[in-house]
Amino acid sequence: MATQGQVITCKAAVAYEPNKPLVIEDVQVAPPQAGEVRIKILFTALCHTDAYTWSGKDPEGLFPCILGHEAAGIVESVGEGVTEVQPGDHVIPCYQAECRECKFCKSGKTNLCGKVRTATGAGVMMNDRKSRFSINGKPIYHFMGTSTFSQYTVVHDVSVAKIDPQAPLDKVCLLGCGVPTGLGAVWNTAKVETGAIVAIFGLGTVGLAVAEGAKSAGASRIIGVDIDSKKFDNFGVTEFVNPKDYDKPIQQVLVDLTDGGVDYSFECIGNVSVMRAALECCHKGWGTSVIIGVAASGQEISTRPFQLVTGRVWKGTAFGGFKSRSQVPWLVDKYMMKEIKIDEYITHNLTLGDINKAFDLMHEGGCLRCVLKMNE
Amino acid sequence: MATQGQVITCKAAVAYEPNKPLVIEDVQVAPPQAGEVRIKILFTALCHTDAYTWSGKDPEGLFPCILGHEAAGIVESVGEGVTEVQPGDHVIPCYQAECRECKFCKSGKTNLCGKVRTATGAGVMMNDRKSRFSINGKPIYHFMGTSTFSQYTVVHDVSVAKIDPQAPLDKVCLLGCGVPTGLGAVWNTAKVETGAIVAIFGLGTVGLAVAEGAKSAGASRIIGVDIDSKKFDNFGVTEFVNPKDYDKPIQQVLVDLTDGGVDYSFECIGNVSVMRAALECCHKGWGTSVIIGVAASGQEISTRPFQLVTGRVWKGTAFGGFKSRSQVPWLVDKYMMKEIKIDEYITHNLTLGDINKAFDLMHEGGCLRCVLKMNE
Repeated sequence: MATQGQVITCKAAVAYEPNKPLVIEDVQVAPPQAGEVRIKILFTALCHTDAYTWSGKDPEGLFPCILGHEAAGIVESVGEGVTEVQPGDHVIPCYQAECRECKFCKSGKTNLCGKVRTATGAGVMMNDRKSRFSINGKPIYHFMGTSTFSQYTVVHDVSVAKIDPQAPLDKVCLLGCGVPTGLGAVWNTAKVETGAIVAIFGLGTVGLAVAEGAKSAGASRIIGVDIDSKKFDNFGVTEFVNPKDYDKPIQQVLVDLTDGGVDYSFECIGNVSVMRAALECCHKGWGTSVIIGVAASGQEISTRPFQLVTGRVWKGTAFGGFKSRSQVPWLVDKYMMKEIKIDEYITHNLTLGDINKAFDLMHEGGCLRCVLKMNE
Repeated sequence: MATQGQVITCKAAVAYEPNKPLVIEDVQVAPPQAGEVRIKILFTALCHTDAYTWSGKDPEGLFPCILGHEAAGIVESVGEGVTEVQPGDHVIPCYQAECRECKFCKSGKTNLCGKVRTATGAGVMMNDRKSRFSINGKPIYHFMGTSTFSQYTVVHDVSVAKIDPQAPLDKVCLLGCGVPTGLGAVWNTAKVETGAIVAIFGLGTVGLAVAEGAKSAGASRIIGVDIDSKKFDNFGVTEFVNPKDYDKPIQQVLVDLTDGGVDYSFECIGNVSVMRAALECCHKGWGTSVIIGVAASGQEISTRPFQLVTGRVWKGTAFGGFKSRSQVPWLVDKYMMKEIKIDEYITHNLTLGDINKAFDLMHEGGCLRCVLKMNE
């Protein structure tokens, strides 16, 4: 390609400092180095983790940076030694890498590959510990190893999932974060079985994906818990509980509703008080609570140890336990076979230029996912 | 038998109030009612849970009561409808019942039978919500449904494990609590696998039984953590760490010693700060921490939710997850075949009359289990 080996100048939304509107800028994107892939991002969605870092509450947040981690695009060029993808491949960048070589990948017990984390956590690339983004020579930090709020981005090759070229990128971009996180929390982390009673705290995209996953796993009751009574009820939720309708603690409400507690609960908000309620609404003897939401820095969860000694299990999940490079393509295939939903989560479509409006929408009740078209 | 259907007067150690020496009294033990079994206790050991309730810190503690829950004896008589044991059977009374009929027993997921818990928690028997123990007509509460610090006790039939009559009761009495709790935490709750790295916080009887269980499961490293450097080192512990020898937090010491953390940790003390350390010394991605110790009432555990989101699992266990009536006889058989240790945990042998001395011994470093002979 004509751009291969060249710096590309393109549009990107730059976060200069916490809580200030993103600025659409012309950024220079350097060519990929060894083990790197430059991707033309066609569609990106917004996720609450972008908003979290943007808010300044993320202690790892670095500014100025290019946010964004739920996207799809086409490989523009690859660096030295990259063999698994080539220019023209349709891909989803994955904030959770999968190198297949590190202690984590080889354990068979986790998806939390550690290979590039020290770089992605520091907003740079592994090869030279520098950023590939700059504006007039001034570096702009990467974010989560993805930085998809740019028309072009550079990611590590271990962070690229090659997918079916027939898949609509404006839809499957959602498989970069929220939908797999919810489905995987049910399928991989909790391993919900037929007949189980499930409670979901927070009915955003992740919570509704939990509902969808629980429905497909054969759960008998799927209780959605949210203070916003506006429900999206075609995902599997069988009952809706609004904590505001009760005087007693929500964990007690759920224990009473379920003859002793739920079999599985999922916290999809990031609120440490809700995490406690989610654990304590679980059935004695076996109830398992999975933390999915990301709490603000410094906050802690707590409970009486008796809750665990009497058989409840407290765990958590990141990217739903899915191995990114291996399993995102499989999720794309499942979508193509209509085995999982994606379209129903997309409530809004805008363009990159509207990104600040898209962030506003995200905080409104009627929005699940807003997908931005990048090449306008 | 001559005593069947009669009130039996025998010696028992009565706890009249918290922290006051137990008093050896002549107590009247009423005959077993429907679904009950009267047992002649031949040997009982002391456990820290007895001391915990005796200390007054147990909110469920009721006085005056007869403590004790780790014992063995012979069935003296049975009440109406009792079919699974008969007079003369050798038995171990079990504080954790197993009815095989309740929601818990039928779940296949837990050993926490709920059938008699409302009675045992209230120090009485289910049938008439009254005690079978009295002194001159004044009732004395039961404890944990076992009250083994008496030459005769009455228990629910769902709390009686019938064992091999060849088994030495002065040894297998330990299978009523501490040893199964440690072994089961490894085998049933954590499911430690070959090659795993294990950390054990607190090297009392339970902690050493964890070591023994981990050794039999094929753990590659078994790290004992205790502030008392007096070790009992024939149970499987491969390394000893004394937190007092380090300036940094013990979780960091263990993470550094193990290239990222242990695969499994066990808290065998009942200290909420240690429970946190036990979780946080686990390896990212898969480390599992099991709480065994009983914390004082009102105390809470806490950690950053990130610990769980990055793959650690926090759980607990009671009686090691063993189904009491079904599996205690199996443990007795394993002891008879020399597949598990018991004798090595018994550091002292005394008589019922020496029970206060036995409690004093329990708080000394050199004591694991003190077994009391009852019929002197």
